Amino acid sequence: MKCKRCRRTEAAVDLPSHHAAFCPDCFFVFFRRQVEEGIRTLALLSPEDRVLVCVSGGKDSLVLWDILMDLGYRTEGLHIDLGIEGYSDRSREKTLAYARSRGKETIVVDLREEGVPIPEAAKRSRKEECSVCGTVKRYFFNRVAAKRGFTAVATGHNLDDEAARLLGNLLHWDGEHLSRQHPLLPEETQGLVRKVKPLWRVGEMETAAYGFLKGIDYVTEECPLSFDATSLVYKEALSLIEEKMPGTRRRFYQEFLKDGGRFRSEAIVKGQDAVRTCLACGAPTYTETCGFCRLKARAIAGAERRRR
Amino acid sequence: MKCKRCRRTEAAVDLPSHHAAFCPDCFFVFFRRQVEEGIRTLALLSPEDRVLVCVSGGKDSLVLWDILMDLGYRTEGLHIDLGIEGYSDRSREKTLAYARSRGKETIVVDLREEGVPIPEAAKRSRKEECSVCGTVKRYFFNRVAAKRGFTAVATGHNLDDEAARLLGNLLHWDGEHLSRQHPLLPEETQGLVRKVKPLWRVGEMETAAYGFLKGIDYVTEECPLSFDATSLVYKEALSLIEEKMPGTRRRFYQEFLKDGGRFRSEAIVKGQDAVRTCLACGAPTYTETCGFCRLKARAIAGAERRRR
Repeated sequence: MKCKRCRRTEAAVDLPSHHAAFCPDCFFVFFRRQVEEGIRTLALLSPEDRVLVCVSGGKDSLVLWDILMDLGYRTEGLHIDLGIEGYSDRSREKTLAYARSRGKETIVVDLREEGVPIPEAAKRSRKEECSVCGTVKRYFFNRVAAKRGFTAVATGHNLDDEAARLLGNLLHWDGEHLSRQHPLLPEETQGLVRKVKPLWRVGEMETAAYGFLKGIDYVTEECPLSFDATSLVYKEALSLIEEKMPGTRRRFYQEFLKDGGRFRSEAIVKGQDAVRTCLACGAPTYTETCGFCRLKARAIAGAERRRR
Repeated sequence: MKCKRCRRTEAAVDLPSHHAAFCPDCFFVFFRRQVEEGIRTLALLSPEDRVLVCVSGGKDSLVLWDILMDLGYRTEGLHIDLGIEGYSDRSREKTLAYARSRGKETIVVDLREEGVPIPEAAKRSRKEECSVCGTVKRYFFNRVAAKRGFTAVATGHNLDDEAARLLGNLLHWDGEHLSRQHPLLPEETQGLVRKVKPLWRVGEMETAAYGFLKGIDYVTEECPLSFDATSLVYKEALSLIEEKMPGTRRRFYQEFLKDGGRFRSEAIVKGQDAVRTCLACGAPTYTETCGFCRLKARAIAGAERRRR
């Protein structure tokens, strides 16, 4: 099959949801346009921004960093070492190797040094690993960005991630999470830095193809703690539907951002909680003490239980 | 494993979504309560009603008729012979045999005699079979009920059907259909009879178990035209999620009926179209001519195209 754009070269990437197939060069053009369009339509970033890119070492975050640099944004990488034996070491290595190849430094936060490596923090606080990991990462993303004067935090969430999350939130009619699910969370007073997801228009297969064709060397293994993550179940269910009805996932998420706005506006009408300052650490939070400090307190209490 | 209710007899039906397992007798009690509860909480039926039960010959509709009779409702069966070779004959036979076994008559509408057997009507109108079937059935359900003085039309849609439909409506953000998705559609002027789905609280597996344990002889084959029905894809996706997270399907649908009411109320605020009278046949409709008459017109035009 020939590329649907240049009609000369053999197609290398098949995109049923777009009724298209591209050769590598035309795919780069397509992919870049999708990301640019995603940034432009929702006003995620401006050329003045100093962007902190959260890089795990996986395909999505490295592709995100790669394309943001290519688009000319001022970026720095932040890597959180989760403290998961083997997996975290390999992830850190890939991240640093990629950064070196682009002549970039990476800020590294080591959760072992911070006293909250994910496996132990989850065990001691008796909470689910993925949930603990989310709390801890969000905390450091914002802390590093606020302390170092970044104006935006960018994460590599793609269309498949966001659609799966949307499905999960709808299955549970989780109005709170639905109201905050958006590729743009604007900055707030009290030091809450703007959070953006520039890859919201591109699918997982597309970022994988982009990473592969660009020769980006990323960690291909899944996190060993995520094997029973609920998000993977929602992804699988959506993939099943997408396979039979290509384009459903994209329309589902994009129409939510338009029509689904009703959820967000409702939450605002209900009176969303204001951002406050964590009584323990001073971080921005919607509750008295922030999620990270509550988690730490639970983990410390758990460790003490064990010692007794 | 012993029955979780009587704790004496061996359990025969396992219900992970209810964290329960019942022996046959206790399962009958459970099932009956679920249906009663479903009828009561949404005020679907009253003892004064004359209920037209739509019976296809499949498990859901025969179980529905069976339990409505057991609950003491005044019922009659309506069977629509779809005109699908082999399948429709077997379905009609099973329906009439069941009715005879309960000393009941069945009203039969034969779509071949009405000039709209589904396979031909779909081909000639160039529309998807399941969609044509839905239009035609809805038309005759209401027409027979209105003409013969029934106060309610009952269909055998179960929880799995309704949850799959809800998922499909959400994936497409179909506000029109979301606003009308409810186990109770009240009667309207212009001869639109109340429509109810008394099995909305029980799952497909549960109606199958009930039918099997009661010795109801139903058609087990799937409709040969529905093999690529989109509803089956949504069902499969939800089954995949349900298997990993039992109870999700039930909560998804039941919470929609509570919280999801926002969709319905929004549609009402937007000003739902009023019921009018079809210019061609006089049936109640939201458009100038009813869906059935438009379909017939398309089918006739299609037949003429072929003759030329």
